[in-house]
Amino acid sequence: MTAHDYDLFVIGGGSGGVRAGRVAASLGKRVAIAEEHRFGGTCVIRGCVPKKLFVYASQFHEHFEDAVGYGWQVGPTSFDWPTLMAAKDREIARLEGLYRRGLENNGAEIIDSRAELIDANTVRLVSSGKTVTAEKILIATGGTPNPHVALPGHELCISSNEAFTLPALPRSILIAGGGYIAVEFANVFHGLGVDVTLIYRGKEILSRFDLDLRQGLHQAMVDKGIRIILTDVIEQVTETADGGRLAKTMCGESISVDTILLALGREPNTRGLGLEAAGVESDELGAIIVDDYSRTNVPSIFALGDVTNRVQLTPVAIHEAMCFIDTEYRDTPTSPDHELIPTAVFSQPEIGTVGLSEEEAGKQYADVEVYRAQFRPMKATLSGRTEKMIMKLVVDARSRKVLGAHILGHDAGEMIQLLGVSLKAGVTKDDFDRTMAVHPTAAEELVTMYQPSYRLRNGDRV
Amino acid sequence: MTAHDYDLFVIGGGSGGVRAGRVAASLGKRVAIAEEHRFGGTCVIRGCVPKKLFVYASQFHEHFEDAVGYGWQVGPTSFDWPTLMAAKDREIARLEGLYRRGLENNGAEIIDSRAELIDANTVRLVSSGKTVTAEKILIATGGTPNPHVALPGHELCISSNEAFTLPALPRSILIAGGGYIAVEFANVFHGLGVDVTLIYRGKEILSRFDLDLRQGLHQAMVDKGIRIILTDVIEQVTETADGGRLAKTMCGESISVDTILLALGREPNTRGLGLEAAGVESDELGAIIVDDYSRTNVPSIFALGDVTNRVQLTPVAIHEAMCFIDTEYRDTPTSPDHELIPTAVFSQPEIGTVGLSEEEAGKQYADVEVYRAQFRPMKATLSGRTEKMIMKLVVDARSRKVLGAHILGHDAGEMIQLLGVSLKAGVTKDDFDRTMAVHPTAAEELVTMYQPSYRLRNGDRV
Repeated sequence: MTAHDYDLFVIGGGSGGVRAGRVAASLGKRVAIAEEHRFGGTCVIRGCVPKKLFVYASQFHEHFEDAVGYGWQVGPTSFDWPTLMAAKDREIARLEGLYRRGLENNGAEIIDSRAELIDANTVRLVSSGKTVTAEKILIATGGTPNPHVALPGHELCISSNEAFTLPALPRSILIAGGGYIAVEFANVFHGLGVDVTLIYRGKEILSRFDLDLRQGLHQAMVDKGIRIILTDVIEQVTETADGGRLAKTMCGESISVDTILLALGREPNTRGLGLEAAGVESDELGAIIVDDYSRTNVPSIFALGDVTNRVQLTPVAIHEAMCFIDTEYRDTPTSPDHELIPTAVFSQPEIGTVGLSEEEAGKQYADVEVYRAQFRPMKATLSGRTEKMIMKLVVDARSRKVLGAHILGHDAGEMIQLLGVSLKAGVTKDDFDRTMAVHPTAAEELVTMYQPSYRLRNGDRV
Repeated sequence: MTAHDYDLFVIGGGSGGVRAGRVAASLGKRVAIAEEHRFGGTCVIRGCVPKKLFVYASQFHEHFEDAVGYGWQVGPTSFDWPTLMAAKDREIARLEGLYRRGLENNGAEIIDSRAELIDANTVRLVSSGKTVTAEKILIATGGTPNPHVALPGHELCISSNEAFTLPALPRSILIAGGGYIAVEFANVFHGLGVDVTLIYRGKEILSRFDLDLRQGLHQAMVDKGIRIILTDVIEQVTETADGGRLAKTMCGESISVDTILLALGREPNTRGLGLEAAGVESDELGAIIVDDYSRTNVPSIFALGDVTNRVQLTPVAIHEAMCFIDTEYRDTPTSPDHELIPTAVFSQPEIGTVGLSEEEAGKQYADVEVYRAQFRPMKATLSGRTEKMIMKLVVDARSRKVLGAHILGHDAGEMIQLLGVSLKAGVTKDDFDRTMAVHPTAAEELVTMYQPSYRLRNGDRV
C-alpha cells in the first residue's frame, strides 16, 4: 500500500469521470471525485439531456399542425418558457442526484470543489485550500464553449451554457456556427416560435457529414422559415437602445435580434488546472495529450473524455473510462475503440450517420455503390407536411461491405444506433438484401434498395 | 410461342399479384391481371396502410396531453371521424392509382373483374362471361377475415374490413380476438376516444410473441383504460332496442356496446375460385398447397401470398413474387426465404420482434442468456406519462449468436427492421457490445446491456 490519501483522484464529475470513479470504487479502490459545478457534466447539466428535452418541447407545434389532417381540431395553443425551464431543472436535479448516489453507494468520496494539480500525485482543493495525494489522478474536466474573445462584443453574446438557463424566450435569435450544436438550437428555437437566423462561415452546414444530408437538412430548415447565411461571419456585436443585439457581418449585413448565441466549437477545460505544475503536456488547443490507454506523459496522471479532444461524445467518454478501468484496475489493457462511431444530430429533421460519407468513401475506395432513397414519410401524406426523408447506404462494390449509412428524418437517431451494430459487425449489402421488410415503416427503405442509385469510380460519379 | 391468350394470368391485384404481374410484363411477357375489388389488395385497401394512418390519428391525443409537461397550453381538442375517413380514402385512391399505373406502364392488361379457374390453363372473367387462356396462371387472391359463422349473431358483427369504412365512430366497441389485428384496433379505437373491451379465449394476448412483450403490452393497455377479458369467448350476439349490440360470453358476462368487431384470424380467399375444376389441391383451411417454388400440384398454376397461408405479410408476398419471377422468367430457381422475418405490431406501445422468443430459445438451446432492460423513455420524464419500454436480446451462450430481439415501445417497428439486418447477418452479442451508444436514444439500451439479466439452462431460468 502507498502512503497516498487515495488510490484514485478524479477531477471532474461528468460522464467519464463519474463512470471511472464509481467503477473504481466498486472494485474496492479508495476514490475521491471533485467537481466544481454540478455532477453530471456537460451531458446532464448543459448538453445532451436538456437539449433533447428542448427538442421534444419544440416538436409539439408540428404535432398540433399535423393533427388537423388526421381529423382533429385543436384549440388555441401557447408555450410558456419558464414552465419548460422549471420542468427541465427538476429532471436535471433528479439525474444529478442519481449520479451522486451512484458514487456514494459505491463508496467514492464526493468533493464539491474545484481541484487543481500541484504535482504528479497531489491535488489542491480550491474550496478548502487543502491538498490531498493520490496514487493515480484522472483528469476528466471536459470542455467548454469557445467564447470567441477575438470578436468585439463577444461578451454581449451567449453560449449554449446560457441557452439552457435563459430567463425568457427571445423573440429573435442569431446563431453563429454550423456544427451540430448551432443546428440543433436553431431548430429548437424555431420550434418554440423564435425568429431564427443561422450564420456560418463555411459553404454548407455540418461539415464532414454526408453532403446529401447537409443539403437536405439545410433545405428543410429554410423551408420551415429558418434563415441560413453561409460564407459569412459576425465581425462586431453591439447593444441596441432597447437592450437587443446588433451584429455586423463580414459581408456587410446588419442583423438586429434579441439574442446572439455563439456555437463556434468547444475547447478543452484545462485553464488553471495546474498542468504545468504537474508537468502534463497539452496541445495548442489546451487538450491533454494521451496515448492509446488514456495515459498522459506523467505516469500517475490519466485523462479522458472531452478534455483530451479525441471524440467529444458522452458514450465515448464512458467507453474511455471503462477502458481505463480495465487497463489500470482489471489487469486487462484495453484501448478505446474510436472506429465506426454512430452519431445523431437532433435537428428537425434528425440526422443519423455512421461510417464513411459518400465523399470520403470515394477517396478511399476505387469502386463505390451508392444506394439512395428520398421519399415522403407516410405520416406526411395526411398531415400535408412537405418533408422528405433521405436514406443512403454507401457500399464498397468489391467486398460488398457497407461502408456508411446516412439518414435524414424522423427517428434517424434510433435507426443509426442499430445500423451501427450492423456496420461494426462488418455486414454486407447482401445481408441488407436478404432481410425481409417490416411494413409500413420508414426503415424498410434500407432493405429494399436493390439497385445502386449510382456508382463512384475513383471518386467520380458514373 | 404458345397459342394461349397470355403468358401469365394473375388472379388478384394485391401486393404479391401486382408485383409478379408488373415485373413479368416488364420482362416482355404478355400479362393480364384480374381483380374483383380494388387494386392494392389487403395491404393498401383494408390493411397495413389505412391501419397505420389510423394509428397516427389515434396518437395525437397523447401528444396533446404530453405537451403540457413541456410548457404548452392546448385549447379544447375534438376529433371528427368522417374527416379522417375522407383523408384516408383519398390517400388510398392515390395508392391504388399508383398500383394501376405501375401495371399499365409495363404493359400488363388490367381486368376489373372476378376471375375463376376453368381448367389448368383457362380462366373465366365473371364480369363478361368471357374465357381466356394462359400458359401460366398465378393465384394471388389473398385472405379474408374469418366470419365465424358458428357464432349466433355473427352477422350483427363487423370485421376489420368494415372497421375501415364505418360511417360513424362508435362510442363503445367489443373486439374479439387476441392477435395483432385485434390488438391494433383496440389501441386505435381507444386513442380516438372509444370505450374499448377486448375479449380473447387464450391466457394472454399475442400468442407466440415473447411473453415479456405480451404482458408488457397487456399492462400498458389496461393502464390507459382498455378492458381486456382473457379465457372467455362471445357465445351469442343480439341486437338491442337502441340498435346496439349485446354479447353474452361463455363465462356469463353480458357486454353491451355500439359495435362488435370480430378479429378471429383470416382465411385464404379460395371460395368459388374453381380449384376443383382445375384440379388444384388445397388444405383443410382452403389454403392452396405449394412447394418451395410456389408451384401448385398443377404444373401451369402457381400461388403465392396469403392464399397459400405461409407467412401472411405484405413483404413476404412481394418476396414470393420476386422468387416466382426469378424461377419462372429469369432462369434462376429461387425459393422464398421465410427465416428470421422481423415484424411489428402497431399497438400503442408498439411491438417489434425478430427471431426466437425467450420461451422458444429455451426449448431449442441448452444455454441461453437473456439481456433485458425496462425503462422509462426520456420523453415521459417531462410528460409524466407512466410508460415503460422493454428491450430484450436472447443470446445463445455457446456461440454468442443473438437468437432473438424484442422491443416494446415507441419506434419498435423502425428499430426491429434494422435489428433484422443484424440477426439475418448472424451477428453476435459481442458485436452489440463493441458498438458505441448513440446518446440520448432509446435504442442505446440495446448496446449497453453488458451483463445478462438471467440465464436459461435447458429451458429453466437460473
